[in-house]
Amino acid sequence: MSEKLTGAKRETVLAGLTGNGWVIDGNRDAITKTFKFANFVDAFGWMTRMAIIAEKMNHHPEWSNVYNRVEVTLTTHDVDGLSALDAELAQKMDKAK
Amino acid sequence: MSEKLTGAKRETVLAGLTGNGWVIDGNRDAITKTFKFANFVDAFGWMTRMAIIAEKMNHHPEWSNVYNRVEVTLTTHDVDGLSALDAELAQKMDKAK
Repeated sequence: MSEKLTGAKRETVLAGLTGNGWVIDGNRDAITKTFKFANFVDAFGWMTRMAIIAEKMNHHPEWSNVYNRVEVTLTTHDVDGLSALDAELAQKMDKAK
Repeated sequence: MSEKLTGAKRETVLAGLTGNGWVIDGNRDAITKTFKFANFVDAFGWMTRMAIIAEKMNHHPEWSNVYNRVEVTLTTHDVDGLSALDAELAQKMDKAK
């Protein structure tokens, strides 16, 4: 199980994520990002690849899709905040975009 | 292209949908329903089948997923409200659940 990110490690991880367009949620300890694609098939294709990765990690995103846009929120319910799993999934999402 | 549902036809279609758990959106002319599944794989598997159907219809849902839940909103942007396409997609979603 992942531990809540704290201290210097948290700052380093968050700096990397916000540098790639992730935004700290204003209401809870979570990160969000909106991914845009050429069309619905591209958007849902990416979601499908991410769904398989998320299931393998046993760490799932909160996400919504409207045509070519996918809005993702990542947080770790078990620790009530951000963990290394969120950073790992965020990086995999960015890499697969 | 689909036309906006009006009059008696609209009432008949909406009665059928609300009878199956669809709710009229309070803020705009749209319908919403939350589908619950056993787990993430079942939820995303259903979304994948629906994504292919939606693409074939060229009529796409607004939807969000959190683990085993999928919240769907259907409306037809071209007519700024509900059309027969929304009713058709809603029925296909119910049938495939």
